[in-house]
Amino acid sequence: MSKSSSRRNFLRKTAALTGGALAAGGTARAAPLQIAPTTQEMGRPIEATAYGMPSKYEQHVRRRRTDVFVNRQNWSDWSMTPLQHQPGIITPNGLIFERHHGGTPDIDPRTHRLAIHGLVKQPLVFTMEDLARYPSVSRFHFHECSGNGLTDWLKPMSATVQQTHGLLSGVMWTGVPASTLLEEAGIDPRGKWVLFEGADGSAHARSVPMEKVLDDTLIVYAMNGEALRPENGYPVRVVIPGWEGNVSVKWLRRIKVGDQPWYLRSETARYTDPMPEGKWRKFSMVMECKSVITTPSGGQKLGKPGFHEVRGLAWSGAGKVRAVDVSFDGGKNWREAVLEEPIMDKCLTRFKIGWNWDGGPAVLMSRAVDSTGYVQPTVQDLQKTRAIVGFVQHHNAVQPWAVNQNGEVRNAIGQA
Amino acid sequence: MSKSSSRRNFLRKTAALTGGALAAGGTARAAPLQIAPTTQEMGRPIEATAYGMPSKYEQHVRRRRTDVFVNRQNWSDWSMTPLQHQPGIITPNGLIFERHHGGTPDIDPRTHRLAIHGLVKQPLVFTMEDLARYPSVSRFHFHECSGNGLTDWLKPMSATVQQTHGLLSGVMWTGVPASTLLEEAGIDPRGKWVLFEGADGSAHARSVPMEKVLDDTLIVYAMNGEALRPENGYPVRVVIPGWEGNVSVKWLRRIKVGDQPWYLRSETARYTDPMPEGKWRKFSMVMECKSVITTPSGGQKLGKPGFHEVRGLAWSGAGKVRAVDVSFDGGKNWREAVLEEPIMDKCLTRFKIGWNWDGGPAVLMSRAVDSTGYVQPTVQDLQKTRAIVGFVQHHNAVQPWAVNQNGEVRNAIGQA
Repeated sequence: MSKSSSRRNFLRKTAALTGGALAAGGTARAAPLQIAPTTQEMGRPIEATAYGMPSKYEQHVRRRRTDVFVNRQNWSDWSMTPLQHQPGIITPNGLIFERHHGGTPDIDPRTHRLAIHGLVKQPLVFTMEDLARYPSVSRFHFHECSGNGLTDWLKPMSATVQQTHGLLSGVMWTGVPASTLLEEAGIDPRGKWVLFEGADGSAHARSVPMEKVLDDTLIVYAMNGEALRPENGYPVRVVIPGWEGNVSVKWLRRIKVGDQPWYLRSETARYTDPMPEGKWRKFSMVMECKSVITTPSGGQKLGKPGFHEVRGLAWSGAGKVRAVDVSFDGGKNWREAVLEEPIMDKCLTRFKIGWNWDGGPAVLMSRAVDSTGYVQPTVQDLQKTRAIVGFVQHHNAVQPWAVNQNGEVRNAIGQA
Repeated sequence: MSKSSSRRNFLRKTAALTGGALAAGGTARAAPLQIAPTTQEMGRPIEATAYGMPSKYEQHVRRRRTDVFVNRQNWSDWSMTPLQHQPGIITPNGLIFERHHGGTPDIDPRTHRLAIHGLVKQPLVFTMEDLARYPSVSRFHFHECSGNGLTDWLKPMSATVQQTHGLLSGVMWTGVPASTLLEEAGIDPRGKWVLFEGADGSAHARSVPMEKVLDDTLIVYAMNGEALRPENGYPVRVVIPGWEGNVSVKWLRRIKVGDQPWYLRSETARYTDPMPEGKWRKFSMVMECKSVITTPSGGQKLGKPGFHEVRGLAWSGAGKVRAVDVSFDGGKNWREAVLEEPIMDKCLTRFKIGWNWDGGPAVLMSRAVDSTGYVQPTVQDLQKTRAIVGFVQHHNAVQPWAVNQNGEVRNAIGQA
């Protein structure tokens, strides 16, 4: 009761603030009372065996390839999550972003095998049934591609938050701790790095330090309460919480223990960051603290002036989100948003803050702080320590959205 | 590191316990090392706009109508969640159970309206856009039909946990607190009960005490990160956390405030419980504390003797799950299971416990305790206070699964 009483009649109060009547808020209407009719015909019966799908009225909520690039081939490709339509911290499996280096392979779980070898006491091979018998864990984590936002550094190239930030999803992963399987094989004391390699046509692979593998890495067979989807690594993948998505190798076929990294193409020619002195940073795998306002966001249009709830997502590969501040004037003034429980480690966290839009131009920004004290930087901050040349990875800067007097919301990166 | 070291080589230890070698566990194999091949052809490209679907190898994971009843018509019907295939605490939207009284109506969100009227200061009508502008909350709750398990009281009628317990799902709901909307309308001091009525052909409706409505009831437009599915109430429904599913009226068209319950057919002729003295209990809406083992469960077959992780779900409409005990000998001895974080109010909670199956007959049971101290009863306990005549609702008794020497798992309700 006390919680809700603080919200009591807030739209009415808002209307008062903006000088209008209740109806001016555009959110509630007085009599004559229109009660929606009941359906006058029998509804659709239940299908005897079914897997349900979204409403036909939600066809616009789709993961999409970027509209910024024209991809000249189809196999090394990606699609993006419609974050502007996602409430809460979970992305439905049908809308989780994709990134493939050779398309989605068709792998039969009955014949697939996962091998552990290299610097181990006893090489092991697991069937999918074997993996299912091991002690399991389910954990909620964000999943983000290191290339999220790479089109939009110095000026706006993308219209929507799906295009600027949609290489991001929230997932409940289920699987076996990698430590369990490695300790089953017995780790040689010389073993300091671990290779994860996929069974897709590109045999995508990455080297990961043993310390991270034993800390919280999972060998995953399920997502959001069901088996992995084919495009997300079916039947088995790695999930390395808080690290750039491509190290969480999909369609996993082997885990090899070594005494140093493998320095693969995906660790030298790709997934590296240009630095001001002309060198390239490698193994920059932690996705640092970041946030973005999803409502309102690019391409949307505010209704009437008055109360609007501004909503967004914050996350950090280094721990939990501690706080999110929001500015409505391009960064001059900031107010602290409410964070919604549960706030979990290396997981999307939803923030919300009320805003009385006066009908004039505004620039909305969010800035997250994580449990290590790290503060999300601006593009200008990042330019001081990184070289922003071309399509650069690891873009965790503050995202400004500009609102004009018509309520139209536009990407203002690099301009505010 | 300390967490994982406690699990170190547990399958090897298990194998030792059961007198076999590592391979005897059936979960890990030694050389010759089979490394799965990579795909030798290009994979499936990304669809330009897509909503993803499960693997073709997961066709058996479907919600289904019960096999116990033959339903003679299709509109007042239900389907059940395949809990035996669900890891974690979230049910994917495609697998959330259904219960309709008149089929699924086709409601256009652009024309649908939600009215609040009755004992309020100002009747209000909301469009779906109006609702989206109000301060939103996302909360994780279990959702269970009061009829869950009604086929299986005194003897086993159902084979699988999907049939015995599958009118149960776990959902992250997003919407507006009902208190926000009611306080916007202004509650007349005489208003003590609230009617929620659907726009489906049956105009299903229920009366709910104002206290519960103002406490934690939500007016919901999204589930698990996307719009409600049509069969789950699109575009708007009520969610009354921890209460029997049918009070969370779908396809919501009006909320009426009154000074007493409406005593609808669904409150007198249906959704009532027979008591020993021949009377029927009404408004028994809290779903009391309950648990069930999902792995292994009816219809499954254990592999070799040795280590098995026993997994299940626990929940309570009265609060959080405090503990779950598991018995492997039909209730003579009990051991406390591990509860997986996050443990949330009126939400599914996953429990897990290791079991070394000796290859002989066993009877597995779980018994949950909630934060009020309430202990999940046995069928025999419930028979002392309730009349079990026919298909009785509110069955929250301990579920026994019998394992025979072949590892076959069978429903043993009323027999153990």
